[in-house]
Formats: sequence, C-alpha cells, structure tokens
Amino acid sequence: MNFDPRLLKDCEVIGKFKLCYVLLMRDANYPWCILVPDREGMTEVFDLSGDDQHQLNTESYALLEYLKKEFNADKMNVAALGNVVAQLHIHHIVRYKTDIAWPAPVWGAFPAKAYSQVELDQRINRLVKGFSTLNLDFHVTQEPSDR
Amino acid sequence: MNFDPRLLKDCEVIGKFKLCYVLLMRDANYPWCILVPDREGMTEVFDLSGDDQHQLNTESYALLEYLKKEFNADKMNVAALGNVVAQLHIHHIVRYKTDIAWPAPVWGAFPAKAYSQVELDQRINRLVKGFSTLNLDFHVTQEPSDR
Repeated sequence: MNFDPRLLKDCEVIGKFKLCYVLLMRDANYPWCILVPDREGMTEVFDLSGDDQHQLNTESYALLEYLKKEFNADKMNVAALGNVVAQLHIHHIVRYKTDIAWPAPVWGAFPAKAYSQVELDQRINRLVKGFSTLNLDFHVTQEPSDR
Repeated sequence: MNFDPRLLKDCEVIGKFKLCYVLLMRDANYPWCILVPDREGMTEVFDLSGDDQHQLNTESYALLEYLKKEFNADKMNVAALGNVVAQLHIHHIVRYKTDIAWPAPVWGAFPAKAYSQVELDQRINRLVKGFSTLNLDFHVTQEPSDR
C-alpha cells in the first residue's frame, strides 16, 4: 500500500482491519484515528466498490463505537475531507467538551501537540488491545521497534 | 419529526428520502446539503439500527455522487460532527479549489453568504429535480410557498 507521504508524516500506522489501515494522528490533543482503505487511486467514498463501501462502514462504525466507549467521548467526529491529501482517508476523532478546540472542528484549530514516546507507546498498545476485540481481523502491521 | 431549531434557522428543508430528510444550508458559498435521519434521539451514526445505518449510507453515497457530478465538484466533504447541534445530521459539501475557504474545512471559516430568493428557489428546484432521479423514494415535504 502506498500512503501519501503527508499521512505518514502526521500519523503512526498501527495496523490493519480487513479493508482499512488504521493510523493514529500524532496529536495528543485528541484521541484521533484515521482509516485508509487498502485500495489504490481512491479519493471519494463512492469510488469504492459496493462490497468495499459496506466493509468501510462496518469498520468505521465499530471504530467510532469503540473509541467513544474506551475514551469516554462526549461526541465522536467523523469526516472524509481530502482537500489537502486526496488519498481517501476517514477521520475518527474523540471530542470532549473540555478539549482545546471544542465545539469547533479540530482541523486548523490548534497546532498538533506532541506525544512523549512513552505516551505514544501506551496509546498505541491500548488501541492495539482494543482493536483486537472488534472482530474485524485486526493485525499489527509494524512492530513498535520498526517505527 | 422534531428538528433542532438551529437546523431550521440555518437550513431549508427540501424533502425526504426513504430514511433521511434532506436540507439545504442557507450558505451560497458552497452547495451544501445535510441529511437528517427521521429518527428521534440519535446523536451518533452508530446509534441507528443496522438497517438504518445501511439505508443512511445508501442515501449519503448517492447524494455525494450526485452532488459531485451535478456541481462539478473538485472534492466532496462529508462529515458528522454534532458538537453544537447534537441531533444526528450529516454534512455533504461541494468543494472547489476556487471556493472561499479552500483547502480548509468550511465550518467556522467564513460567515454564511445569503442566497437571493431567486437563487434559492433555482437551487432548490434544481436539487428537487435531481433527487427525484436517485431511486431513493424522494418526495418534497414543503411546497415553496410554505417556506
């Protein structure tokens, strides 16, 4: 899978569900995951085949529900924008009434806040453990030592 | 169906597909439609039943594809945020590389630009005609004279 370099610059690739890679945005302001369908040349959700659309929705809804519960979100934000990075990717963002940008959308609101290496490893390990319970064929694609 | 009053303040209710009402945002900066599932008390897409999730996706993807083609969009933006208006609603926004906010997301970027009454009627009539071709049981819920 060829990722747009800007996705790799801003995110950690955690692993893959049946259809989509799941990435963690390197922004400690919000638990923020991105799904990237493992299909080349897609820019809109409706570019996917019917089966892939169905699978994307299954993975997206399960991810939203998991993140909301795991992180006690006040609200989930989900969006496919792609104005800057055209490669199809779908944001899944945990929002709190106390977060830095609330109630505004997160894009462009504040600069990303860096995770410490310990925080990042903890966050990824927590997600890996959770994703493995979702019945979506999750597997890790990069060992932590490869990051 | 009880709409959040802020949706009615900012939007025209155009009609209804099988599951969702379709609204036009009163912002002439972008062709911008909103789907509101005809279900009370929903705030997240995963609050919907499995059948309703499937129907929402059918309507959302068809709407995106129609809007992209009809308005020659450079990119479609689709999002469920709900930080301000909790009632479940999904934005479908036509974006151009030449629009006022590009490439930023539209929310909070610029004040809404008013449609003239003539422009608004033309825009709604065009959408009504298009929606009727989508095989989604579209029907108008308010005659123009009732608006």
